[in-house]
Amino acid sequence: LSGLIDELRTVVEPAHVLTDPDLVGPYVTDWTGRWAGYARAVVRPSTVDQVAAIVRACAKAGAGIVPQGGNTGLVGASVPRGGEVVLSLRRLAEVGPVDLAAAHVRAGAGVTLAQLQAVASDANLRFAVDLSARDSATVGGMIATNAGGMHVLRYGSMRAQVLGVEAVLADGSVLRRMDGLVKDNTGYDLIGLLCGSEGTLGIVTAAQLKLVAAPRFRVTSLVAVAGTASAVSLLARLRSLAPLEAVEIVFADGVDLVCRHAGLPPPFSQPYPCLLVVECAGSTDPTGEMADVIGEGPDVLAVAVASERAGRDKLWSWRERHTETVNALGIPHKLDVTVPIAELAGFERDVRATVSDVAPGSKTILWGHLGDGNLHVNVIGPDPDDDRVDEAVLRLVAARGGSISAEHGIGIAKRNWIGLTRSPADMAAMRAVKAALDPNGILNPGVLFDEGAGRAGSENEGSG
Amino acid sequence: LSGLIDELRTVVEPAHVLTDPDLVGPYVTDWTGRWAGYARAVVRPSTVDQVAAIVRACAKAGAGIVPQGGNTGLVGASVPRGGEVVLSLRRLAEVGPVDLAAAHVRAGAGVTLAQLQAVASDANLRFAVDLSARDSATVGGMIATNAGGMHVLRYGSMRAQVLGVEAVLADGSVLRRMDGLVKDNTGYDLIGLLCGSEGTLGIVTAAQLKLVAAPRFRVTSLVAVAGTASAVSLLARLRSLAPLEAVEIVFADGVDLVCRHAGLPPPFSQPYPCLLVVECAGSTDPTGEMADVIGEGPDVLAVAVASERAGRDKLWSWRERHTETVNALGIPHKLDVTVPIAELAGFERDVRATVSDVAPGSKTILWGHLGDGNLHVNVIGPDPDDDRVDEAVLRLVAARGGSISAEHGIGIAKRNWIGLTRSPADMAAMRAVKAALDPNGILNPGVLFDEGAGRAGSENEGSG
Repeated sequence: LSGLIDELRTVVEPAHVLTDPDLVGPYVTDWTGRWAGYARAVVRPSTVDQVAAIVRACAKAGAGIVPQGGNTGLVGASVPRGGEVVLSLRRLAEVGPVDLAAAHVRAGAGVTLAQLQAVASDANLRFAVDLSARDSATVGGMIATNAGGMHVLRYGSMRAQVLGVEAVLADGSVLRRMDGLVKDNTGYDLIGLLCGSEGTLGIVTAAQLKLVAAPRFRVTSLVAVAGTASAVSLLARLRSLAPLEAVEIVFADGVDLVCRHAGLPPPFSQPYPCLLVVECAGSTDPTGEMADVIGEGPDVLAVAVASERAGRDKLWSWRERHTETVNALGIPHKLDVTVPIAELAGFERDVRATVSDVAPGSKTILWGHLGDGNLHVNVIGPDPDDDRVDEAVLRLVAARGGSISAEHGIGIAKRNWIGLTRSPADMAAMRAVKAALDPNGILNPGVLFDEGAGRAGSENEGSG
Repeated sequence: LSGLIDELRTVVEPAHVLTDPDLVGPYVTDWTGRWAGYARAVVRPSTVDQVAAIVRACAKAGAGIVPQGGNTGLVGASVPRGGEVVLSLRRLAEVGPVDLAAAHVRAGAGVTLAQLQAVASDANLRFAVDLSARDSATVGGMIATNAGGMHVLRYGSMRAQVLGVEAVLADGSVLRRMDGLVKDNTGYDLIGLLCGSEGTLGIVTAAQLKLVAAPRFRVTSLVAVAGTASAVSLLARLRSLAPLEAVEIVFADGVDLVCRHAGLPPPFSQPYPCLLVVECAGSTDPTGEMADVIGEGPDVLAVAVASERAGRDKLWSWRERHTETVNALGIPHKLDVTVPIAELAGFERDVRATVSDVAPGSKTILWGHLGDGNLHVNVIGPDPDDDRVDEAVLRLVAARGGSISAEHGIGIAKRNWIGLTRSPADMAAMRAVKAALDPNGILNPGVLFDEGAGRAGSENEGSG
């Protein structure tokens, strides 16, 4: 053990190899509070060469490595399970300059989303992925988890923004595809494979990221409809709007709680079963075409529109304040799922009924990204450690052909349920890829595949 | 040998196991005429179960398999090298219906791009990838090669359109992720990994494909500029146009040849060094903002604009007729490369000089997709079998951080040069993935990796 730590102190400045429990604390506890573990050390390199040397040292010692960015993940994949080395990428924080003609920018793994957005904005461009943890979520973590957010409908998830990566592989070699090429059919898409692999196939140290045009106009509509089925039929029409950027869904019970918790007035003079936040953004004013498309439908019960910042923020508030409202009511069971759009209405009905059966007296609040079929299912009431509700919801999702993890990943939290939506052939292929690229299982052991835990990383097995 | 063929005849109707040289001919010769080989049989299954049974039979016999779609590939990956079984996917040709709310459609591997586009269009939607081989190129082949085309700038390549795949793996198991989910972070992105893997990791039998809004307005501008550097600076401005869909580049020498070959008038009253075809398409008329952005520049020498079909086609003709013009002059060396946008002007200058040095008296015609940094380098003059020009051009590309294969893939044609842009660490990772998913090397042997040839597929090794 001390041998490895001594070696790590020759790779990075000793002050960046943390073993003092007071210093290590924030790196070993998940921000949700649900996951925590013991790290034999936290290492904070500042260059890719240091990362490679750390990986080689850990490989030699048989020590597991938990790569960590902003530690804002939701599935327990960024904190140690038992005795791994936490490899914090936050010091790899160089970003820019923006290449204007190619519309991309190089960013180190430790650059936060907020930093990246600021650099893009200064160049009159925009980074297409946005999410609420923007001040702490890092580029490396967002790649490792294939982060989603509000704008996937238009621009795709993180994977679609990554034109290049630099990553350290399990043997300490460095994979470098950093020329920012939009078209490059030279062998396998290892870039896309690393995206969403949750630190189990390689450690991303930098990326070349696509930027998109900053919109000159942005218009938001809050649209009341009779329920999910009406929302889905409106969605089909909305897709004809080229500048469509977000279609979010909330329900009357959630809106009512938000109004009470956050002190907001009701959005309309009367309550409606279901509300959509529809946003368009582009280089010309979309107000007219938006009104035409939304207004055409027989199923639209009420509409409010805003194009100025303050008015748009107000329309968004009934959606955006759901998370804090639910957290204030207790520790929710948070399930982040996708179902095929055609199954959404049936799923919404069933999930409420099923949760009531499994956990009588609990409260189910739903909201999400309608355009992607992505619902956040929040259940308040059952004990946080009781996962019967989680399992019941995920089984419903699987039965309707959905995904048990839309945006957050599998991590530790959902690995026992991965078989619900991934067939044995699929699992065998994924395990084969893992074994091929990390034969000794040192990269984020225990994440995705349950038996990975303990293969590497436990202190007993490590040598120094 | 006959044992395998007998077994294949129990899997599919005997009439769909072809061994007669007259029938086999079109399946073993590349449409460019450059590649041809011997197949022990051509099998034409019509269901995924038949494909799986064929793969199992070939695996048992140690026979290599060459998956084939429309056989319109450009790098020799769709015809046999020596004694493989050609597995034609063309009979898996079911498509639809379109899911309007989710905006996607299921298509069998054998569906042609033209069929797919027609089905999308009937639903008032559009499939975002377009290319000239649309009547014969198939969905399976376009996924295997990660096809590109004109609209990558806006919508990404084929990989970005594939929401789901069904594929037969090397052991005959079936990977199925066909729910059409936009967001699904459940393990590794095997869908994206199969895209562009050129039939070496699995055989795609069907896909769930994303559709986009059909534009109501489309406007094309032909813009004359002083050269590549001016074109690149205009490109940076054009990126602010949200409805920007294509930015193509041609040069004076190519345009002059096109006019003479195709009997077209010159595009402007005087010749200009470089022309761009700029196209915008969307749900509102982009004419005004396009004119504003293009007109703002000091480097724009002349502009022609058209919004009606006939006028737009005419503006495109000086770009589109390059391929036939070059083919009429002889058998060109065709190199499909990307360089970083910032390197384009230097590359354009160097490639002309280098080709003149290596092949004095040859003619170099360039055109391409400026927005992606993708140039098609066509050299007429050197003997088709003399690859010194190819190597010199690809070395220039690599030196500038480009891609030796932007759209077409590696196949057989470029496998000797893959090391120019893929490091040993990268190659080792790709070989590890190949070995993990196809340990006996039966899927498209010889493609991508040179020593794959002969590991499986030669008749001597096969047993029956």
